[in-house]
Amino acid sequence: MDTMVIGVAGGTGSGKSSIAKKLCEAFAPDAVILCHDYYYKHNQHLSFEERAKCNYDHPDSLETDLMVQHVKQLKAGQDVKHPTYDFTKHLRKPNWEETKAKRIIIVEGILIFTNQQLVDLCDLRLFVDTDADVRFARRIKRDVNKRGRTMESVIEQYMTTVKPMHEQFVEPSKRKANLIIPEGAKNTVALETIIGAIKRKMY
Amino acid sequence: MDTMVIGVAGGTGSGKSSIAKKLCEAFAPDAVILCHDYYYKHNQHLSFEERAKCNYDHPDSLETDLMVQHVKQLKAGQDVKHPTYDFTKHLRKPNWEETKAKRIIIVEGILIFTNQQLVDLCDLRLFVDTDADVRFARRIKRDVNKRGRTMESVIEQYMTTVKPMHEQFVEPSKRKANLIIPEGAKNTVALETIIGAIKRKMY
Repeated sequence: MDTMVIGVAGGTGSGKSSIAKKLCEAFAPDAVILCHDYYYKHNQHLSFEERAKCNYDHPDSLETDLMVQHVKQLKAGQDVKHPTYDFTKHLRKPNWEETKAKRIIIVEGILIFTNQQLVDLCDLRLFVDTDADVRFARRIKRDVNKRGRTMESVIEQYMTTVKPMHEQFVEPSKRKANLIIPEGAKNTVALETIIGAIKRKMY
Repeated sequence: MDTMVIGVAGGTGSGKSSIAKKLCEAFAPDAVILCHDYYYKHNQHLSFEERAKCNYDHPDSLETDLMVQHVKQLKAGQDVKHPTYDFTKHLRKPNWEETKAKRIIIVEGILIFTNQQLVDLCDLRLFVDTDADVRFARRIKRDVNKRGRTMESVIEQYMTTVKPMHEQFVEPSKRKANLIIPEGAKNTVALETIIGAIKRKMY
């Protein structure tokens, strides 16, 4: 089976998940998304309070080696069983989920291009680039409205870990991208161009 | 005739001309490049010394209205006669040149996305994004080796007009791009993706 791995990175709130979803929809049922988020480490040895204080924006918070292995398996046409994460508990969910091997494998995550093995596995590397204030506005809206967080706690987390880790890891990893998509999923010309190129290559 | 206008912008030394050329070659004989550089104003009323001191990195140094008209004509399938520029004399050359109408019209220039009409005319807008130091290194090499300039005069011009105009006009115009290509013509994945998408759309 001829496969293609597409990496979609970008900061929090950049619109990278929307881009990943739209790419996946464009190639349904031939595409699948594997999120780096699935691979957050299972810090069961820490109390909830300790886990809540962890730095989830640092590459070390993720079991990326396992993700690398799964991308290789998907690329080889093998289905994978991967963890999924419960953000409310800061723990992995008890049951692992199956992701079926497909021709088009979309690897999505803020930090995917900080790992050289993931970089090398991607046939096309996309970085969604959105202004920091726009990204912050989206994040605070999501975390307050959908994740029941207080505005103050979101701001505190953003300033202490999200922003510094973005500057240290995410922003420099943009250099690994083959194409940068400004302003996310509303950029229909970018999406159409990328979809057209993949169709041309794969069909 | 079904046409497509592709804008290629980016700072001096970014590699945008190489990208434009490679795109043109990929679609030969169906593609043509129109450079914004052709449209530098003909400042015959100034002495050579005065012309040498002009700010050629400001949008007002170009007759962009004429270029807009020519892009519209090419898009409508009409050949155009356009000026060309003699950089050694800082004047237009005496004879205008013909550019034949083709299906794929590549519009190239540092400042093309500072003009809203050019922005609107482009079906796909690309911005080639290369680090400022790399761009400066390429420029000084080109101007000293190929244009017979002294290193000192190139540095002087770079600091007094090229860099400030880049920051004022070129860098903000990146927002108009649909796709940003990091590091120019060596980014073969970006080039292949864009060529594939155009082929898919046009053929």
